[in-house]
Amino acid sequence: MNFRMVVHILGKVLCVVGLLMLLPAALALYYRETCFAALAATAAGMIAAGLLMSWKKPENRTLYSREGFLIVALAWIGISVGGALPFYCSGEIPRFIDAFFEAVSGFTTTGSSILTDVEAMSKSLLFWRSFTHWIGGMGVLVFVMAIMPLGGSRSMHLLRAESPGPEVGKLVPKMRFSAMILYGIYFGLTVLEIVLLSLGGMPLYDSVITTFGTVGTGGFSSRAASIAAYDSAYVDGVVTVFMILCGVNFNLYYLMLLGRFSQALKSEELRWYLGIQLAAMAIITANIAHLYPSIGTAFRYASFQVATINSTTGFATADYTLWPELSQCILVLLMLCGSCAGSTAGGIKTVRVILSFKSVGREMRRMTHNRSVSALRFEGKPVREETIGGVNLFLVLYTFIICASTLLISIDGFDFTTTLTASIATISNIGPGLGLIGPMGNFADFSWFSKLVLSFNMLVGRLEIFPLIMIFSPSIWKR
Amino acid sequence: MNFRMVVHILGKVLCVVGLLMLLPAALALYYRETCFAALAATAAGMIAAGLLMSWKKPENRTLYSREGFLIVALAWIGISVGGALPFYCSGEIPRFIDAFFEAVSGFTTTGSSILTDVEAMSKSLLFWRSFTHWIGGMGVLVFVMAIMPLGGSRSMHLLRAESPGPEVGKLVPKMRFSAMILYGIYFGLTVLEIVLLSLGGMPLYDSVITTFGTVGTGGFSSRAASIAAYDSAYVDGVVTVFMILCGVNFNLYYLMLLGRFSQALKSEELRWYLGIQLAAMAIITANIAHLYPSIGTAFRYASFQVATINSTTGFATADYTLWPELSQCILVLLMLCGSCAGSTAGGIKTVRVILSFKSVGREMRRMTHNRSVSALRFEGKPVREETIGGVNLFLVLYTFIICASTLLISIDGFDFTTTLTASIATISNIGPGLGLIGPMGNFADFSWFSKLVLSFNMLVGRLEIFPLIMIFSPSIWKR
Repeated sequence: MNFRMVVHILGKVLCVVGLLMLLPAALALYYRETCFAALAATAAGMIAAGLLMSWKKPENRTLYSREGFLIVALAWIGISVGGALPFYCSGEIPRFIDAFFEAVSGFTTTGSSILTDVEAMSKSLLFWRSFTHWIGGMGVLVFVMAIMPLGGSRSMHLLRAESPGPEVGKLVPKMRFSAMILYGIYFGLTVLEIVLLSLGGMPLYDSVITTFGTVGTGGFSSRAASIAAYDSAYVDGVVTVFMILCGVNFNLYYLMLLGRFSQALKSEELRWYLGIQLAAMAIITANIAHLYPSIGTAFRYASFQVATINSTTGFATADYTLWPELSQCILVLLMLCGSCAGSTAGGIKTVRVILSFKSVGREMRRMTHNRSVSALRFEGKPVREETIGGVNLFLVLYTFIICASTLLISIDGFDFTTTLTASIATISNIGPGLGLIGPMGNFADFSWFSKLVLSFNMLVGRLEIFPLIMIFSPSIWKR
Repeated sequence: MNFRMVVHILGKVLCVVGLLMLLPAALALYYRETCFAALAATAAGMIAAGLLMSWKKPENRTLYSREGFLIVALAWIGISVGGALPFYCSGEIPRFIDAFFEAVSGFTTTGSSILTDVEAMSKSLLFWRSFTHWIGGMGVLVFVMAIMPLGGSRSMHLLRAESPGPEVGKLVPKMRFSAMILYGIYFGLTVLEIVLLSLGGMPLYDSVITTFGTVGTGGFSSRAASIAAYDSAYVDGVVTVFMILCGVNFNLYYLMLLGRFSQALKSEELRWYLGIQLAAMAIITANIAHLYPSIGTAFRYASFQVATINSTTGFATADYTLWPELSQCILVLLMLCGSCAGSTAGGIKTVRVILSFKSVGREMRRMTHNRSVSALRFEGKPVREETIGGVNLFLVLYTFIICASTLLISIDGFDFTTTLTASIATISNIGPGLGLIGPMGNFADFSWFSKLVLSFNMLVGRLEIFPLIMIFSPSIWKR
């Protein structure tokens, strides 16, 4: 393990996140809020620590996948601790575990909150809370890589450890340029949504906060009632479309920028992703039609809730815990399924679900025909056997972690539905679940131990399990 | 597909189950119950149909795994329909879907019931209901194979399609002799438990019924209050021990009969199985101690409930839905885990869970060390890569089916806990779940569609998925 290199890159990450924190600090100054001190001090501390750690360039700059995993895991834990400090030091979130939970929920784009009174928070801290979604959405190491040279050979390992999906497609041969393209697209979507929301009459501050929550597929809002607070079909529509857009593999947008539209639209994962959403929207609309004045209104709420859950955003315009059980079950399944690989979203990812289904079909053909069956194909290309084995292993591990965390938080004694869906909603980076933690509920009442377990779930979900559980493996700490 | 051979063996199965039905018919005569006509007529019908189907010996007696799967799937559906007729024709269960559900639940040793008033049933039909547990427990084709030559080469494929576990170990080179040994041990355990229960003062009829439910790990009782009706620590103890014993791989008993005790006790699966149960018993005892007058009483109820759930039996001496959430969550996990391969129990099976955990550990070593890692070992022997892939695929498919059936029965609109655990309790062949279908509840209120889905789940669980889903594959129906 190349510890010098690990510390060096961690330092750069802390530095960059500290610099980004100057933005809410400036906002606090503008709004004359007392939390300025907490934001500025934390930012300064992170920048100082970061500079100290990354000052000396290590001679050996080799990075293997183990280093990649370790850096990514520690970076995400580090920025979560740093990101929590302004909440805690300003006194606006009095307990550190709550502040940490909120920061993890922010960076991992989960959107689960312990806040019981969102509007009571200062505007600059609410900005920071939603800004963490934006920073975490496309990946913090990807961001660092895009703006500065990381100086390590094989930085591919970093991207691989942080990017969602079973396989990482490089856009262009040079990693840093790939990262810049991804962030460029991300930035473009961000600006576009802010403009569209502002045109609809939403105040600029709210537009920015809502956009951070949307494009990062996070779900924090500056209003306790979430998007329902604006009560506008236009806003609902814009947010719905952008949630769906941000659940799509960003590589496809790159293809579109190159003019290769037909290739992008042929994507098998994209078609399944959109197909699943449309089917869910149709069934839920029919299922809840009797609760709303018109089929159009039912569709408006159904499509928003489907998009918000399937894209793992977690905004709300309706309390779906009051909907029929069938609609709730569909939403829970969509929570697990998640969006496309290479997007800002969480969950298992559509590609894994499809590959797993295909492997089941192949196994059945193998059993009935007593003969070898050809390789699976996805996106028109044959899939390596290791990838398929890895996908099924991932699904099994995902289920194990859901089971284990459900067991651990069941100590708190909430009902089974709340306990199980808290576990699913955090590991899939959604935000709300069913029962007490539905769209109108929150996570405040869980014990500190459960909040720690759920924070672990959020990080595990965002980093796709392996980087995070590896830090518990003794062998990775050997030199 | 060798259809002649399929029909031939199905005929033998129907014939044998028809003959077994003469036992409750005789009992009905003895008790002078009106259901005699229904039992006798169904038995006669099944024997006649069976003789007709198996009269002519096919010239081509080859059986491949496809034939094995098809025979097993159709046999289990066939005997379930046949087994349901006495309930329906006697009028004691007025709707056919309910009678079918009860028969499937019986043969698959699930023990989920639609009966709202168990004691109102006639004694001979209650006997038949529990007798189906005993018939299904060790496998109906194994039974048929033990008592008559099936006349096909490669009848191994039949045993493999019906026996639980990722790999089938042959006891002795000759399949038929293997089947006889297994049934001999099964019969021995049955007689032993009847004697022990009778010695404790339980009426003979109740002892037999309770024993059928125990050794088949089924869970039907002749009392609405299940084993709690006897309110005896002795009975609880005997049943607990036998439930645990019948969740053990029967091959180990054969080893013990051969005097190879140390080899049997070294079994890795056995140690995990007992270890998991002891740990669960200890935690639950501590968790519920405050609800009972003494720690001993708490242990009595904790150990019974752990044994009944983990062995997938489904008897009850306490309503665990009133226990703290932690205990309930542990029980749900035990439902999924199930007992050992080669036992009469359902669930995923301990061996699969262990192998899957081991494969996760290996994957982590692989990722951190960038090198090939040696083969997994289980029971001291290396495990084939295909077996590991198959195990993970099985777990994924199991989860898919739980998700899909939860979705389908959610149409009924019961709460999420009831809906999800109904799905788990049936596919794992347990019986009760949480919520409305807890140990003191029943499945009566589900719609006919949900009962059909749950019946499918029970068969899927008992036959370990593949045989049953293959009958939906068009290719298997080709000549």
